[in-house]
Amino acid sequence: MHETRKEQVLEAAVHLFRAKGYHATSVQDIADAVGLRKGSLYHYIRSKEELLFEIIHSTIQTYIHRLESIAARPEPASARLAAAIEAHIKAVAQDTEGFAIFIGETRALEPEQRQRIEEASSQYGHLLERLIEEASLEGAFRPADSAMAALAILGACNWMHRWYDPQGRLSPKEIAAAFTEVFFGGLLQQPQIQASLPGKGRTGGVTTRR
Amino acid sequence: MHETRKEQVLEAAVHLFRAKGYHATSVQDIADAVGLRKGSLYHYIRSKEELLFEIIHSTIQTYIHRLESIAARPEPASARLAAAIEAHIKAVAQDTEGFAIFIGETRALEPEQRQRIEEASSQYGHLLERLIEEASLEGAFRPADSAMAALAILGACNWMHRWYDPQGRLSPKEIAAAFTEVFFGGLLQQPQIQASLPGKGRTGGVTTRR
Repeated sequence: MHETRKEQVLEAAVHLFRAKGYHATSVQDIADAVGLRKGSLYHYIRSKEELLFEIIHSTIQTYIHRLESIAARPEPASARLAAAIEAHIKAVAQDTEGFAIFIGETRALEPEQRQRIEEASSQYGHLLERLIEEASLEGAFRPADSAMAALAILGACNWMHRWYDPQGRLSPKEIAAAFTEVFFGGLLQQPQIQASLPGKGRTGGVTTRR
Repeated sequence: MHETRKEQVLEAAVHLFRAKGYHATSVQDIADAVGLRKGSLYHYIRSKEELLFEIIHSTIQTYIHRLESIAARPEPASARLAAAIEAHIKAVAQDTEGFAIFIGETRALEPEQRQRIEEASSQYGHLLERLIEEASLEGAFRPADSAMAALAILGACNWMHRWYDPQGRLSPKEIAAAFTEVFFGGLLQQPQIQASLPGKGRTGGVTTRR
């Protein structure tokens, strides 16, 4: 019961932060939304900031657990990376506003909480980085700066919360395929290489689409 | 004189927004910083939100003008795109906190102002997109979804404001080179192609470094 009420409070806070923004939402608004007096609400939460931290922290933990379970699959690392990109993009598409709270409001946290979120973000980045390194070891990827490659992929996927339109031209799956094609295959035509392979142009794209 | 005072106000606001955050900065703080009474300050600005809009708008206009001038250079489009990536990354590195205000506080704007910023952001993305299309027409890039490729590049570069460390392992120029290597060359080893080119491995990386 106690847990359930806490969950109700968290859910109401997410809805209000999305609708009105974090700064414009008062503790009174949250209390009203769950039918509690402000004094009683403080039985469940310490502060509005603590609530924001819990919401952001639980969002990123969900992303980490999802990525860990993809990384543990018995598949080539490059296929796991492609699956990770698709899962990330689908998750952002499914809850773009919630993701925007995570991206946009981390600045509103106190330094210590902000630090914990930054650490969790780094953990997520390192998991991607390890997949890239594994794919290099497996011979699928050429040696690259895996840390920079992971940050490039992460940034591309995260930025999507700014432009994604559910009514847009591409589905989340198609966006993931387009991104993977760029990251895996690169933009260059590589005419020297292609010229030596008549009839085997790379125009169709080297992708992991299946 | 009038313009100069306005510029002082804008500059003071940028400093305060960076140091304390937009929401925690009051109009009184800004007035104090430029040695004006609050009432006199309203001679120069309409509201704190209007100030935020002007700061974000002028930031993005600077980015657009820089990109336009790079796009107009008499060089192959792929070289112009590489230059654009490097210029963007250097600009974010030079003013990471100011860029974070642009990224993080756009949500605080009124819908109409937010719309104008989104339009300017789109304009920037379209300039990148056009460079990718040009590079395809010139034969340097293979046909790709240029809109998605532009958004991937933009996201990777923008996300840098979250992890860039001036004391870090790589300089802005090196970060740009690593990103360009991933975006241009791709992560895949492409063993079938490489196998047909003995002694001509792609391990050294297809980059635009010069």
